[in-house]
Amino acid sequence: MAKKLSIMDSGWLMMETRETPMHVGGLVLFDIPEDAPPDYLEGVYRYMVEVDGICRPFNQKIQSRLPLYMDATWVEDRNFDIDYHVRHSALPRPGRVRELLALVSRLHAQRLDPSRPLWESYLIEGLEGNRFALYTKMHHSMVDGVAGMYLMQSRMATRADERLPAPWDGRWDANKPPRQKGINVKAGAMEGLSNVRKATGQVVDLLRQPRDSTVKTIYRAPKTQLNRRVTGARRFAAQSWSLGRIKAAAKRHGGTVNDIFLAMCGGALRRYLLTLDSLPDEPLVAQVPVALRSADQAEEGGNAITMVQVSLGTHLYAPQDRLAEIQDSMAAVKKRLGLMQKAEIDVYTVLTNAPLSLGQITGLSGRVSPMFNLVISNVPGPKETLYFNGAEMLASYPVSLVLHGYALNITVVSYKDSLEFGVIGCRDTLPHIQRFLDYFEESLAELEA
Amino acid sequence: MAKKLSIMDSGWLMMETRETPMHVGGLVLFDIPEDAPPDYLEGVYRYMVEVDGICRPFNQKIQSRLPLYMDATWVEDRNFDIDYHVRHSALPRPGRVRELLALVSRLHAQRLDPSRPLWESYLIEGLEGNRFALYTKMHHSMVDGVAGMYLMQSRMATRADERLPAPWDGRWDANKPPRQKGINVKAGAMEGLSNVRKATGQVVDLLRQPRDSTVKTIYRAPKTQLNRRVTGARRFAAQSWSLGRIKAAAKRHGGTVNDIFLAMCGGALRRYLLTLDSLPDEPLVAQVPVALRSADQAEEGGNAITMVQVSLGTHLYAPQDRLAEIQDSMAAVKKRLGLMQKAEIDVYTVLTNAPLSLGQITGLSGRVSPMFNLVISNVPGPKETLYFNGAEMLASYPVSLVLHGYALNITVVSYKDSLEFGVIGCRDTLPHIQRFLDYFEESLAELEA
Repeated sequence: MAKKLSIMDSGWLMMETRETPMHVGGLVLFDIPEDAPPDYLEGVYRYMVEVDGICRPFNQKIQSRLPLYMDATWVEDRNFDIDYHVRHSALPRPGRVRELLALVSRLHAQRLDPSRPLWESYLIEGLEGNRFALYTKMHHSMVDGVAGMYLMQSRMATRADERLPAPWDGRWDANKPPRQKGINVKAGAMEGLSNVRKATGQVVDLLRQPRDSTVKTIYRAPKTQLNRRVTGARRFAAQSWSLGRIKAAAKRHGGTVNDIFLAMCGGALRRYLLTLDSLPDEPLVAQVPVALRSADQAEEGGNAITMVQVSLGTHLYAPQDRLAEIQDSMAAVKKRLGLMQKAEIDVYTVLTNAPLSLGQITGLSGRVSPMFNLVISNVPGPKETLYFNGAEMLASYPVSLVLHGYALNITVVSYKDSLEFGVIGCRDTLPHIQRFLDYFEESLAELEA
Repeated sequence: MAKKLSIMDSGWLMMETRETPMHVGGLVLFDIPEDAPPDYLEGVYRYMVEVDGICRPFNQKIQSRLPLYMDATWVEDRNFDIDYHVRHSALPRPGRVRELLALVSRLHAQRLDPSRPLWESYLIEGLEGNRFALYTKMHHSMVDGVAGMYLMQSRMATRADERLPAPWDGRWDANKPPRQKGINVKAGAMEGLSNVRKATGQVVDLLRQPRDSTVKTIYRAPKTQLNRRVTGARRFAAQSWSLGRIKAAAKRHGGTVNDIFLAMCGGALRRYLLTLDSLPDEPLVAQVPVALRSADQAEEGGNAITMVQVSLGTHLYAPQDRLAEIQDSMAAVKKRLGLMQKAEIDVYTVLTNAPLSLGQITGLSGRVSPMFNLVISNVPGPKETLYFNGAEMLASYPVSLVLHGYALNITVVSYKDSLEFGVIGCRDTLPHIQRFLDYFEESLAELEA
């Protein structure tokens, strides 16, 4: 029954330190129904813990005897303790989003226990506006990137009166496949990336510098305050923006939603670094995941996403100039990727990411020049209203991870008519991360003016 | 300015693992004044964070470059971040003691960040009965045993209308000495134990078996479920007992409060192990701290406390027989200690504890036979009512630590007319730790009948 972890998945365990926990999370807000009784949230908590067994991957833990998790396998936790994994928390008064973000910042800073299934879910009450929140963290060796959030959402209802088992309930094992596509759950299901060594020799060519100067490729980015060593403390900020506003700005400037999103990030980073008096003369470079194939193809196995490096134009004063630089840079990257064959793209991804992993293990990250300045992700989410045990989902923010040398991450997931921004950073390396929320808004407003 | 840590104090850092965090804590309950405004607890939080600098030892962090903390020194944290150390939390409804203990169990399981001053304090609201709680944890390398609790209490007021700075406020450095005696704050103040190597040769004699069979000395105790390896998860249980009831039972049976306390522990342990069907035929042995000199002498430096091993009589059916065994065992130990000179006692303490430390480091603890089954402490606390920023202290429970091979700890502190029991254990090694509260009560009732 035991499934061996791929090298990539063990890597997430191996790279984990006190300063760089390797889990990702999601913070989801829900509406408390108007007719809810006073003990409504106790009922939600019971819904979460009174389950009929535990399904994969939530019941799987790591078994390993060799150093560096070289022999790591997933095995079922036969002493699974639901009260350990599902926790009931509350916010101090007045229960604003501010108090919620402070709590999630603390919870996200704590490592998961490697001797248990690598997830925890917190039901959080006391949020003003008749709402409650759910913060769930899962280890990166268990789910890829935002896949944990997809997995949770795929097990939520699309009607208020529909009742489904909790996402980890054992009934999901047999009953039905996940509703949403493109979910990449690793534990006991995926074999990981294809053989890296075999392909490496074929594409050394990729490491040559491209002639097109707007293509920011690996190993080139200015050294900034974002690219220092991190401590274990985190600060999380989150807010929703109207997709309608962003689409209108995109139409006005002849771009895509993603162009405007990146321009909001570039504008915010410029503002942020200016207040710290540390804006570099060269543009910041973002590592951006790009989908290569459709979700249908991805389900057949293999890696449908690659990472590209894009200039954010942060050195330019005018918002329109920054947007144009981003668009030029992205167009050049896409043109370059279009010339590659599938095998090359897989290896390109591995080569682009391998130095990151090596840097974490050797301790060089945050001490040498960065390959890029930060990871920025924009991933599609549900278009229809979702319900959790009858409660309407109001918003769903991704909580990503930071690494030595990469003290900030911006991830955005769409939900219905919104883009849901999640900004996570090291609170010691980067002061006042919450200011990014104001800076995003100012940068969007500039492009609307 | 940097003060080198003693070998003993570095040892607490060196022995720390994910499974065995080396901090101790205190859970204190307060009454919310009747005329308190709705935002009363926000005011308490501001009182805790709006400080005039930070005093020792709260501003001291560890600096170390060599492995195993061999060169560890205390240095001032010049980037001290009060918002990191003082945290505002809340309980989910209905806010019973049950929810409070669940939260404290979780908080106590988390390691302190070794790159910062080694303490955290949580203001906890939402406790029923118009109360709030304060849970504070400090690393054992910073304060000895319950000294952290003493330190906090020494900076609380004795009148409701008296306002003192928060315990970590910088004004304590200059203003006044701690009110209470016997406080042993290590950071930058204590030189630790005297030279162990010099004295060791003189007292090898101590390792011989005593002829008196009721003296349980080192290296002898049955192997029980309490003496297994631990995980990082904790369960904390706490409750107050009337000192009047315990004194009455002591008078009835011709013993001391401590005899009855140990009999409550012995009776509870017998009940607990019986339900697990794992009560050994031999009596459980408790390691019990005993004061050797008065607090006044202790302030001159040196170690005023030694640890002795006492039989808990858990193999005996009748409560009176268990109490008699405890009293005989304690009397024999005291007689034996009375024959020793001071130097011998210091070394006796070190020898009795050294194997414990060695076992933690070598990983033998929980795998070989235990030297004793658990540590049980009964320490005196304040006799007068204390106030924290005007709020009356209702109870104060110690939250101690567990180690590999020592999965349970019972510590009791007195406050006015109560004994405040704190039971901490590994939740994976020992199920249903909260049952001890019922078993203490049943064991006391037996001695009252």
